[in-house]
Amino acid sequence: MPRTGESDPQGMVIDRAEQSVPADGWLRRALEAKRDGAALNPSTWQRIVAGYVEGTIDDAPVAALLMASAIRGLKGEEIVALTDAMVRSGDVLEFAGATVVDKHSSGGVGDTVSLIVVPLVAACGVPVAKLSGRALAHTGGTLDKLEAIPGVRTDLTPAAFVAQSERLVPADKKLYALRDRTGTVRSIGLIAASIVSKKIAGGAGAIVFDVKAGRGAFMRTLAEARTLASTLVRLASGFGRRASALVSDMEEPLGAAVGTGIETVEARDFLRGDERDPRLSENVLAVAHEMLRVAGVPVDAVAPRTLDALHSGAAYERFVALIEAQGGSRAALESIAPHPHRAPAIAPARGVVVAIDTVAIGELAREAVAADGDFAGIRIVAHIGTPVAAGDVLAEVAGPSLDPARVAAAFTLGEAAPAARPVVACVVRDADLSRSAK
Amino acid sequence: MPRTGESDPQGMVIDRAEQSVPADGWLRRALEAKRDGAALNPSTWQRIVAGYVEGTIDDAPVAALLMASAIRGLKGEEIVALTDAMVRSGDVLEFAGATVVDKHSSGGVGDTVSLIVVPLVAACGVPVAKLSGRALAHTGGTLDKLEAIPGVRTDLTPAAFVAQSERLVPADKKLYALRDRTGTVRSIGLIAASIVSKKIAGGAGAIVFDVKAGRGAFMRTLAEARTLASTLVRLASGFGRRASALVSDMEEPLGAAVGTGIETVEARDFLRGDERDPRLSENVLAVAHEMLRVAGVPVDAVAPRTLDALHSGAAYERFVALIEAQGGSRAALESIAPHPHRAPAIAPARGVVVAIDTVAIGELAREAVAADGDFAGIRIVAHIGTPVAAGDVLAEVAGPSLDPARVAAAFTLGEAAPAARPVVACVVRDADLSRSAK
Repeated sequence: MPRTGESDPQGMVIDRAEQSVPADGWLRRALEAKRDGAALNPSTWQRIVAGYVEGTIDDAPVAALLMASAIRGLKGEEIVALTDAMVRSGDVLEFAGATVVDKHSSGGVGDTVSLIVVPLVAACGVPVAKLSGRALAHTGGTLDKLEAIPGVRTDLTPAAFVAQSERLVPADKKLYALRDRTGTVRSIGLIAASIVSKKIAGGAGAIVFDVKAGRGAFMRTLAEARTLASTLVRLASGFGRRASALVSDMEEPLGAAVGTGIETVEARDFLRGDERDPRLSENVLAVAHEMLRVAGVPVDAVAPRTLDALHSGAAYERFVALIEAQGGSRAALESIAPHPHRAPAIAPARGVVVAIDTVAIGELAREAVAADGDFAGIRIVAHIGTPVAAGDVLAEVAGPSLDPARVAAAFTLGEAAPAARPVVACVVRDADLSRSAK
Repeated sequence: MPRTGESDPQGMVIDRAEQSVPADGWLRRALEAKRDGAALNPSTWQRIVAGYVEGTIDDAPVAALLMASAIRGLKGEEIVALTDAMVRSGDVLEFAGATVVDKHSSGGVGDTVSLIVVPLVAACGVPVAKLSGRALAHTGGTLDKLEAIPGVRTDLTPAAFVAQSERLVPADKKLYALRDRTGTVRSIGLIAASIVSKKIAGGAGAIVFDVKAGRGAFMRTLAEARTLASTLVRLASGFGRRASALVSDMEEPLGAAVGTGIETVEARDFLRGDERDPRLSENVLAVAHEMLRVAGVPVDAVAPRTLDALHSGAAYERFVALIEAQGGSRAALESIAPHPHRAPAIAPARGVVVAIDTVAIGELAREAVAADGDFAGIRIVAHIGTPVAAGDVLAEVAGPSLDPARVAAAFTLGEAAPAARPVVACVVRDADLSRSAK
């Protein structure tokens, strides 16, 4: 509300708060340097991360630094310094004995690769560590999928172990929460530091990254995904870890099943040999092969050993053992099935599937799970490139709550099939590894 | 400290904190848009500023927004929206009667213009409002200079008035403190919004901005200063205020005196007609002329009226009245003089003054004041372009504590005089004003 001010007879209005002497300091100079596009030196990154975790630096300057980093980008040596500072913020695990291989996926829809590949690689005699997470946005989480099996409780993991994992990279927990609030999640450098710091602190001796690219992934374009893949491999190599990164397709759901428990069913069926979706199969084998490579398995033995573990049933037995260790049973695993209420999502016209709104599919599947339980969800029948007639089934909805028409609306039909996309667009290997592999 | 971790027999390490479902929201989307270089709409700026002042939005997202704004820049309509939101955050003064003219300087060294121009313009019959500040970094503050006069206490300003000024633009106080901590002070859009919001809320009907450019100013280059000048004029015009902006030189101290009380002495001597530094005079007259113009004084009357106020002693009498209103007296004003201890800063060799480290001069003068009181400081004798012989006086130090050699070190001597720089590089006027002035 405008009000009439008292006018100073001498024409001076005093504003005591207008100016204050700013505290000059290294932190502000660092922020100004990053704002103007300069690279910060390692000791500055170390000081900022340590101060933030200790609480001597508050959210505001770090939020500004994250935004400047997201816009200006981080140079390779800055990502190394940030990652190193993050690793030093907490405990670092070391596994005695053979190299432990870790696998990271940047997250996708219908992405059952982790569930399958961990027992598969373990069955090949390679020690596997996998930091598993909960569902994030429209993508599923491996823990949720495991817990869909009756009796499985991932919180049965030894308390000491859980406590330990909570002491790994506390800087990442704090920084990720801040990035989430400040629009700075999408930054190659910050993403790479977050991912790799946890792998290093978690004791991984070798790492395979599965970077998803496409409309269902956090990286929308192949170019972006390739940049992240190279950044991850270079960064892990810089810490002396053998590493590979795949760029794999997420223009559409990877496998057939999208949900929680129904993805576990798909993983079980895949491992048991009942049904192997070809796209899922290509991704699983590519990841498993890289995991064996970085673990030091001779290159000629990689493919045969993987196939043998799969076909002999060893991988499936390893999966059963994993379930049992978490409180589940073979019988429970074998009993699980998609929700019995099924309804088809129908093609409204003749055409070819040219696009699938993968984020929508992921979100609809999560709605179905929330309404009808773990075994509700969506089963993709017509992948991109599939010709359909009016009335053909595009997908199958499991569970009574989700309207199949909403699922059908996520499919775009066109005249001609789009160019085929490989499931695995490329593999980035660290230089040493590619030399030794030849 | 690396420690040996317990290895999970099944190869799954659970990291419960790895992923959390992020809260999706308008604010994060706004931050992402600004990060990617988009313009935010007025309602978004309004919502952010209001939320920040109310405390429903905390420092972190605002710090990130400020950094994104500093790097990406703000479009004209965004600056208007931000300024409007800032004005709305507090009270708005309105002066009854004639248009009140306000004057803003972006701050410099030896910049006595405000002290001189306020009584000068008031003596021309134009009501003047001036929001005055304290010293900032290496630059002096008008309040400090006034209080150097014995008896003058600017806090004698009516309590109601002080309380009122504290309710003006609370958003600016909060945002400026955050900018200061996050390396985001230097941003044309944020600077313009900060300056103009206070002028609008303070009831200014017309505004003259004196934007300093050069090594002693916050704007280092003429181009930067010109951009700020145009932005300020466009912004003020957008709020219906008549406005002009000068870009004036700050490659070296403006007048001769640099300090606190010795600048007041210079202002007194200028107004009384004892001594008028030609550079200071040029700047004072340019500012006074623009203030009269924007107040609606007919263009032909501007220069004569100003000179008359100066030469008749009316401006000086107005200055005395101002001092008296703040608790001082004519006798006190007439008694003030530089600290009696004087020492020359000597040219070490023959040459021409080609540069003066103006920030250093400002900082040394503040040191002298801190050590020896208000009337210590530096008097510039050799401005840029002055030829000197070895042993000639470059400057005079008032007060015993400051080593004159440190002052001499701020002068760079060269072979040839650099190209002359005008004191006022340009004047930017709003379109309506320039039309009506022709």
